[in-house]
Amino acid sequence: MNCNSAIPSIRRLTLPERLLAGFILLVAASCANAAVEQETQFVFNTFSFLIWGALVMWMCAGFTMLESGSVRTKNASVICLKNIGLYSIAGLMYYFVGYNLMYTDVSGWIGSFTLLYGPSAEELALLSGDEEAKAAVIENGYSVMSDWFFQMVFVATTASIISGTMAERVKLWSFFIFTIFLAAIIYPLVGAWTWGGGWLNEMGFQDFAGSTIVHSTGGWAALAGALIIGPRLGKFRADGSVKSTPPSNIPIVTLGVFILWLGWFGFNGGSQLALGGAADAVAMSNVLVNTNLAAAAGVMAAISVSRPVLGRVDLLAGLNGAIAGLVSITAGPDIVAHYWAVIIGFVGGVICVVGMKLLESWKVDDVVGAVPAHLFAGVWGTLAVCIAAGGNFMVQLTGVLAVGVFVFLASLLLWYAIEKTVGVRVSAAVEEVGQDSAELGIESYPEFVLMPDTEDIEHLRTED
Amino acid sequence: MNCNSAIPSIRRLTLPERLLAGFILLVAASCANAAVEQETQFVFNTFSFLIWGALVMWMCAGFTMLESGSVRTKNASVICLKNIGLYSIAGLMYYFVGYNLMYTDVSGWIGSFTLLYGPSAEELALLSGDEEAKAAVIENGYSVMSDWFFQMVFVATTASIISGTMAERVKLWSFFIFTIFLAAIIYPLVGAWTWGGGWLNEMGFQDFAGSTIVHSTGGWAALAGALIIGPRLGKFRADGSVKSTPPSNIPIVTLGVFILWLGWFGFNGGSQLALGGAADAVAMSNVLVNTNLAAAAGVMAAISVSRPVLGRVDLLAGLNGAIAGLVSITAGPDIVAHYWAVIIGFVGGVICVVGMKLLESWKVDDVVGAVPAHLFAGVWGTLAVCIAAGGNFMVQLTGVLAVGVFVFLASLLLWYAIEKTVGVRVSAAVEEVGQDSAELGIESYPEFVLMPDTEDIEHLRTED
Amino acid sequence: MNCNSAIPSIRRLTLPERLLAGFILLVAASCANAAVEQETQFVFNTFSFLIWGALVMWMCAGFTMLESGSVRTKNASVICLKNIGLYSIAGLMYYFVGYNLMYTDVSGWIGSFTLLYGPSAEELALLSGDEEAKAAVIENGYSVMSDWFFQMVFVATTASIISGTMAERVKLWSFFIFTIFLAAIIYPLVGAWTWGGGWLNEMGFQDFAGSTIVHSTGGWAALAGALIIGPRLGKFRADGSVKSTPPSNIPIVTLGVFILWLGWFGFNGGSQLALGGAADAVAMSNVLVNTNLAAAAGVMAAISVSRPVLGRVDLLAGLNGAIAGLVSITAGPDIVAHYWAVIIGFVGGVICVVGMKLLESWKVDDVVGAVPAHLFAGVWGTLAVCIAAGGNFMVQLTGVLAVGVFVFLASLLLWYAIEKTVGVRVSAAVEEVGQDSAELGIESYPEFVLMPDTEDIEHLRTED
Repeated sequence: MNCNSAIPSIRRLTLPERLLAGFILLVAASCANAAVEQETQFVFNTFSFLIWGALVMWMCAGFTMLESGSVRTKNASVICLKNIGLYSIAGLMYYFVGYNLMYTDVSGWIGSFTLLYGPSAEELALLSGDEEAKAAVIENGYSVMSDWFFQMVFVATTASIISGTMAERVKLWSFFIFTIFLAAIIYPLVGAWTWGGGWLNEMGFQDFAGSTIVHSTGGWAALAGALIIGPRLGKFRADGSVKSTPPSNIPIVTLGVFILWLGWFGFNGGSQLALGGAADAVAMSNVLVNTNLAAAAGVMAAISVSRPVLGRVDLLAGLNGAIAGLVSITAGPDIVAHYWAVIIGFVGGVICVVGMKLLESWKVDDVVGAVPAHLFAGVWGTLAVCIAAGGNFMVQLTGVLAVGVFVFLASLLLWYAIEKTVGVRVSAAVEEVGQDSAELGIESYPEFVLMPDTEDIEHLRTED
Repeated sequence: MNCNSAIPSIRRLTLPERLLAGFILLVAASCANAAVEQETQFVFNTFSFLIWGALVMWMCAGFTMLESGSVRTKNASVICLKNIGLYSIAGLMYYFVGYNLMYTDVSGWIGSFTLLYGPSAEELALLSGDEEAKAAVIENGYSVMSDWFFQMVFVATTASIISGTMAERVKLWSFFIFTIFLAAIIYPLVGAWTWGGGWLNEMGFQDFAGSTIVHSTGGWAALAGALIIGPRLGKFRADGSVKSTPPSNIPIVTLGVFILWLGWFGFNGGSQLALGGAADAVAMSNVLVNTNLAAAAGVMAAISVSRPVLGRVDLLAGLNGAIAGLVSITAGPDIVAHYWAVIIGFVGGVICVVGMKLLESWKVDDVVGAVPAHLFAGVWGTLAVCIAAGGNFMVQLTGVLAVGVFVFLASLLLWYAIEKTVGVRVSAAVEEVGQDSAELGIESYPEFVLMPDTEDIEHLRTED
Repeated sequence: MNCNSAIPSIRRLTLPERLLAGFILLVAASCANAAVEQETQFVFNTFSFLIWGALVMWMCAGFTMLESGSVRTKNASVICLKNIGLYSIAGLMYYFVGYNLMYTDVSGWIGSFTLLYGPSAEELALLSGDEEAKAAVIENGYSVMSDWFFQMVFVATTASIISGTMAERVKLWSFFIFTIFLAAIIYPLVGAWTWGGGWLNEMGFQDFAGSTIVHSTGGWAALAGALIIGPRLGKFRADGSVKSTPPSNIPIVTLGVFILWLGWFGFNGGSQLALGGAADAVAMSNVLVNTNLAAAAGVMAAISVSRPVLGRVDLLAGLNGAIAGLVSITAGPDIVAHYWAVIIGFVGGVICVVGMKLLESWKVDDVVGAVPAHLFAGVWGTLAVCIAAGGNFMVQLTGVLAVGVFVFLASLLLWYAIEKTVGVRVSAAVEEVGQDSAELGIESYPEFVLMPDTEDIEHLRTED
């Protein structure tokens, strides 16, 4: 706004008049230099939540494609249903109880056990035409439900990680039961300690968009599940060798990773939580640039080290390297020295590839490599905040350990309880024939002639 | 903007000076509390149309994946061409005549028969550098073509519904001819009565983003087409049993549903039609939240009732339930009690599954279940506006019936006319071999060995 | 902002007081009519770069799907890796040197050889809490890194074009080496001459979003590569006939084109480079409308002429027609007479189909038809700027030729140098068995039974 042109010469005026003119000039100048208006800020902040939140929702499609292409064809449909189901369940549970536990009246450890969530009284008044309520609405900085929307899509990400690791053997409804508790309690508790303003936040724990809060949480829950459920039949042979279980559809795995990469701009960019002025806009730009650089470095690192570590230039390692790079930068994507993003992402990519190898040597069967990409890189990313984003190492470590111990134990307990009631794992016969036909009565690609998986059959025979 | 800091003490001034100072304070206060500036509103409104409109365009890819994965492999390419073709035709016809019929000088029943559409004279002047035209441009609230863009992408959605229902047997060019008339006349007429300000709008008919105007219109046209064209060969056997025609590629069907879900944030969110202040931003946030909750509830409802209704936990029912939930909330996504969105979406999901079963029992062959998801759930959603969004039941019913009767009859007539001229349906031989090789000379997956569809062949033999 | 209501009657005032009141009214009026505030503009401009830039990044997924579905299954994975690799490399190289060469202190022919890029000193100060730096930050119009982000995603598009043309035979690492030089030097030089403010820009060369700068550059480099590497084994038979190499997965090719179409709204819309007021918003709207109309016309043109030119209604021609329409309008998408977009896109679609036929007759093996769609249509689009967007024909032609000669020769030289060192082309044995198993040790669809490509084997035998 340029108000200066409205001010003519003031030489003809008396002193008090000049004084008044001075006021006018001050007002005018104040107009000219003014920051973004409060209501405009409100719209920017809200729109930012909605747009970036929509992109984060899109990540759920990314996980679905990644996982559906990574499993064998006989389980490609049930993983689709698990993913669309988990997104639905996560959204509903977060609406019913999760958000309140995480953000409403957080007392240090936990928020409020209130059911449902909705617009504020001021917002309802404004929508009913009460213009006087506007000031109070604007005071909040963003619309109440735009924040809810943005927070909600993060819950689903956490659950998506688990479905990947435990694919091809976890029962559909058992997975859904776990998701209910994850979205309603486990994730909101971790969130209450941190973003909700609880004890870890008060210690100064830094996790910009959730290397620990989202990705490690998902990773720990997945690891606990993988330990309870055990590896797929025949995955680790008696002679110590590992059965190759290659992805059944590489192009959609790749598509999934591109979707995740795109969605991550919303995941990290939206986590700036505001777009109401120049400083926020600058910070958000830096966040997107770092996010992209870290992912790119993760890809190149993973491709490069895959040959020495895994014995070949490995596409899947490269794709997983992108995710690891993204997870690594997620705790501190607002750094201003962008080369650190390259380094952090690069290290994340290396950690991921080595982690894939390690997990295999520990005989932990993680179908899509989610634990290395989300948990290992998540820990690295959370600690890396100390390097370039000003984190305190002991505080960051405390956060990593506290979240890790809590989520891992709670998940172990929950998976164990599910195991003792409805059971976690499908029967060997169902696993053999595939969950698609056994649990859903369909095939993912019914018209394509498929290779018989002879080894599985022989393996079972040997076991009998 | 905070102008208050510019105002010092006024105690030293004379009365008239104090009066003047009062003016200044009023101006300053007015600055401080002012709403979003008019031009800023213009940019917000326009950007909202463009961004959300781009997401609605993306829904066309969603329908394409959904349909291409749902048909048998021998028709997976031609449905791709139908979809990219329908989007192209819809956009061109809406530019040539459709938009004017729907929005320009609507007289109650119909708008203007003017060819082409373009920026306003003021906009052209502004773009030519005439700054004085800016006030008139801003007065419109949004750029002329941003609104056109947002309205255009809705037309394609309507046409996409039809291609799904009539897949695997409707001729490519016959479908394109229908699309021309749908985009140029049928849809614009329905639009003129409602969003264009015509008689249904004057009655108070409410349809926020088009449960009836878009989805039921597509559904009625699809139903008319399905009745004219008849079921696929061998779909309904003489003994009353129904031939299973499972989707050929489940992962891309799932991808399609995720794309639609994402695009629906634009579909419903953008239909707020404005983002120029706090009230709009709040409303848009509520719209996105309701959209997501209804879809989630639709998924869970459809999965849950699929076992009793369809005899198994049905992935496709679950996916279609997401769409039904989305369609159900589309007429009134601006409700502020979000639990109603859960309920409305849940009922929509149930209606969809039951509708799929009913259609089958009526021997109507709807390849992707578009009629239950878009028409049945669309009717439900339009009536559901009376529950929580203040709609009048008789008015809503009138809208449902008026649009239904008009679109169904017009479509019947049009399909009949096409049948009597170029023909609607491919020959039995083409249907047998598939439209891909017959109409396009290609195969969708030429390198994959496919199962022979022996039943079809036998069926034909029996018929001969 | 409406400040007028704050101004009461001024009749009781003395002359100087009235004068003052006049000032106040002027200030108030100036508030009321004021343009978008500078900081608000800054946020709009920045957000526009980020959102549209994210959509352009998404185009990389589009190219990946397009190419992965277009090649034979035995090469579908390696092309995925090439694409995610090229996007990573392009982003890193553009960060290391490319952007500075293109935009920093451009002297006419070339920018600065400075390593790395980052936020401005003012931005760093602002982020550190120095509010006084804000004015200088805002002065720039947009955040420094948001522009970098938007420019970065364009580089990858250029490289994506090349991977498509040279698919199924170019070595993974050789392609990566070429990409390094393309992103670090070739593309930035072309960019320096034009968008960087160099000699072509000074001549008045117009290329709004890069018909020449991006698409022709990619096309020329691809053509040079295709000439150096030669056609796939057996593509052009001794008897003059051409071996059919149909796409292996049509639905994902179609998905790829829809992704590109969506991403192009960001590509062209974001190239308005500003969203700080009504004029920019209007222009951006027109850009999106023209982009969509040209693509739609390209599809219909290509479908229509494919029967006479290629002998059948060709899906791939139709899909490529969309891309050609998009490329054609990219040099001047800001025209206000939208019917010109229809015509320009239509001609682009025809040129593409004829170009595909021509290339084949010249025995140039372009796997996805990228040269006709990006180079031929790019030349057409750059010249078409003279029709409706006020370009000067000789200037446009100079730009086309200068960029063409430079990129073609530089690429020839670079491909030749790679050929003489590490080699450009895989061995005949690798080509036979496929790059997926040879270079990556995987198969794209390992569970699907595939047709043996008997002709290839026989062809080799004949050659031996």
